[in-house]
Amino acid sequence: MPEQSPLEPVEGDPFGPHNLPYGVFSTADEPGRRRLGVRLGDAVLDAGAAARTLGSPYAKLLDQPGLGPLMAAGRTAWRDVRRALTAWVTVPSHRAEMEPLLHPLGSVTLHLPYEVADYVDFYASEHHATNVGRIFRPDGLALPVNWKHLPIGYHGRAGTVVVSGTEVVRPSGQRKAPGDDAPVFGPSAKLDIEAEVAFVVGTPSAQGTPVDLASFRDHVFGLSLLNDWSARDIQAWEYVPLGPFLGKSFATSVSAWVTPLEALDAARVAPPARTEELLPYLDDAGEEDPGGFDLRISVALNGQVIAEPPFSSMYWTAAQQLAHLTVNGASLRTGDLYGSGTVSGPGREQRGSLLELTWNGTEPVELADGKRAFLEDGDEVTLTAWAPGPDGTRVGLGEVRGRIVPAA
Amino acid sequence: MPEQSPLEPVEGDPFGPHNLPYGVFSTADEPGRRRLGVRLGDAVLDAGAAARTLGSPYAKLLDQPGLGPLMAAGRTAWRDVRRALTAWVTVPSHRAEMEPLLHPLGSVTLHLPYEVADYVDFYASEHHATNVGRIFRPDGLALPVNWKHLPIGYHGRAGTVVVSGTEVVRPSGQRKAPGDDAPVFGPSAKLDIEAEVAFVVGTPSAQGTPVDLASFRDHVFGLSLLNDWSARDIQAWEYVPLGPFLGKSFATSVSAWVTPLEALDAARVAPPARTEELLPYLDDAGEEDPGGFDLRISVALNGQVIAEPPFSSMYWTAAQQLAHLTVNGASLRTGDLYGSGTVSGPGREQRGSLLELTWNGTEPVELADGKRAFLEDGDEVTLTAWAPGPDGTRVGLGEVRGRIVPAA
Repeated sequence: MPEQSPLEPVEGDPFGPHNLPYGVFSTADEPGRRRLGVRLGDAVLDAGAAARTLGSPYAKLLDQPGLGPLMAAGRTAWRDVRRALTAWVTVPSHRAEMEPLLHPLGSVTLHLPYEVADYVDFYASEHHATNVGRIFRPDGLALPVNWKHLPIGYHGRAGTVVVSGTEVVRPSGQRKAPGDDAPVFGPSAKLDIEAEVAFVVGTPSAQGTPVDLASFRDHVFGLSLLNDWSARDIQAWEYVPLGPFLGKSFATSVSAWVTPLEALDAARVAPPARTEELLPYLDDAGEEDPGGFDLRISVALNGQVIAEPPFSSMYWTAAQQLAHLTVNGASLRTGDLYGSGTVSGPGREQRGSLLELTWNGTEPVELADGKRAFLEDGDEVTLTAWAPGPDGTRVGLGEVRGRIVPAA
Repeated sequence: MPEQSPLEPVEGDPFGPHNLPYGVFSTADEPGRRRLGVRLGDAVLDAGAAARTLGSPYAKLLDQPGLGPLMAAGRTAWRDVRRALTAWVTVPSHRAEMEPLLHPLGSVTLHLPYEVADYVDFYASEHHATNVGRIFRPDGLALPVNWKHLPIGYHGRAGTVVVSGTEVVRPSGQRKAPGDDAPVFGPSAKLDIEAEVAFVVGTPSAQGTPVDLASFRDHVFGLSLLNDWSARDIQAWEYVPLGPFLGKSFATSVSAWVTPLEALDAARVAPPARTEELLPYLDDAGEEDPGGFDLRISVALNGQVIAEPPFSSMYWTAAQQLAHLTVNGASLRTGDLYGSGTVSGPGREQRGSLLELTWNGTEPVELADGKRAFLEDGDEVTLTAWAPGPDGTRVGLGEVRGRIVPAA
């Protein structure tokens, strides 16, 4: 049977020409040369070479070692470049020229596609926040009193954001059991995941000028999956009063692929009904775009699906998070990344962290190779997701994969 | 009287040739060209031009638009470049060549000297933490239970770190008074300062590999003053459970000058006695360098000194903070910046924030133009500091100045 060209449409492929996520790759024969690529099925189109070959004016944005220049070019450029790429991979007359510029996905190395400027992590699932509140603060309110009034967030470490596939070294740190007199030091015994969706800022904004809800599409270039690796024992001891620090900062994994916002137009859905009146800068009742995204996430541990968190259940939307993040005048830079917070739905199998799935280890999940309360060395976690696309298609998000290696 | 050359030593000048902090400047005739400079008295030596003129091998580090390349070059290069610069400004035979490369400080524009990678803020003064605990959590423990076991810190927003002299727009945001049913939105009514010392990382470290106490000098390039502007009302409403976010992220000001660590060798002092046993990675009892710095900070509001916080009173040292920050395997990048946390001494006039000085506004400070609970529009805050230098000299730290302008 002749090998099928990636330019031949495959019915039901979530990475068909309606998707076209961006990434950065290098090949085995030129490992030092990073190039911008666009994923098509199980292949990568060398986008810079394609633009050069076709004499496209977008070569200056695409013939680059990273996504930064395209991300900084703004919404009109994002739309025009996407239209051009769609034509290049679908118009039959381009086929002969494009064919040689496609690399099998398995033959390339994928890199972090942009330099992360600031990284912020939110806490936007009511189900997750309630579960965590019950576990960590059993004597207090499950949901903090401010939770329904503002999307709670905090800054994380941009320098330790790594691309899918990077191994994660089990962190060491201080932890103290409630009954102990003093903390002890050692490898985390409660290493966990958080299944999240991340939004990547393209267009910067000026310090002192908030970005309102309606400007979300002008600033956010695209999205990807994110695994906010969390050491629960380190976090529990350190986080009062200034928030998570070393329990999170050792590694955060993101997809190698950034899905353009436009590819998810058919996946826009209304967020859950709000139960508290929102201040005007967060009130999205009158916004043109529904704020939610109908992304169906799947969490696999050593190949076995352990949860399917629905992103549509998130209380706070990405547009609200951006409006909140900038309402004090904080500026945006190209490459700012913000995570949604753990995605957990109301169901038991919809929880996006082991903390919740195992109720802080008390109800282990059953795997083919034994029970898990938290992650063991050698465990591999893979997040995948898809969303409804145009005309009954599915839009796939690039996976986030990471394997735990023993503490140094 | 003939004008005195900056190359002529002035008795008692805290910016004499024993100091030589680095900065980045541009001149009025070439506003688009940023250059590396070294401060000498009230002048700036064009360090790149000096290196070129003298045919120095350090031209590749100094003839740059920013401090990054020198910061990344490592400790041996830092020492050698500093020795060379010292010779250039002190050896009489260089005078004729150096003289034309000096620009009066008042004639140049100073810029942020390096790109901030990640910004972390600590909470290392026992006096400050105790004061804040009493004010914010009157019914709880003044000092959190973890405070004496680890240097508490959190990540801040790197993209809004600005150079001294940049105006600060009063942030708007949510706040809720304890008795109110719901939050209100508006300009912060409790805008405050935090007088801090910031440490700038030069040499990067690998993800997964902690940086121990003894390696502090291999990684930290220098230090400067930092004003961690804080909106107390926004902070109080948002910070539980994930820490400060919008109450801090609108702006953080740093000196235009980075003082090399070596210039402060004579200012090293032992930190206060520890009252809890420390885990080995934080235990600095056997370290060669005393961990503290005898920096005398001065906080001026509209030109009037309102506090003189002593940095020598800080419980946690910069080396301990770096060891803690990386003990989970978090990597360092050139340009990582970490603040000490507000510097407050035991005395009432040694407190580094208005929150403490005015006890949350209940005991206003008296200024020539009236009382202040928190900052008013138009107020200007200036932090300065000096430390003992070699042979009875004083080493000055570059000032941090910022004026509040009304909310947008």
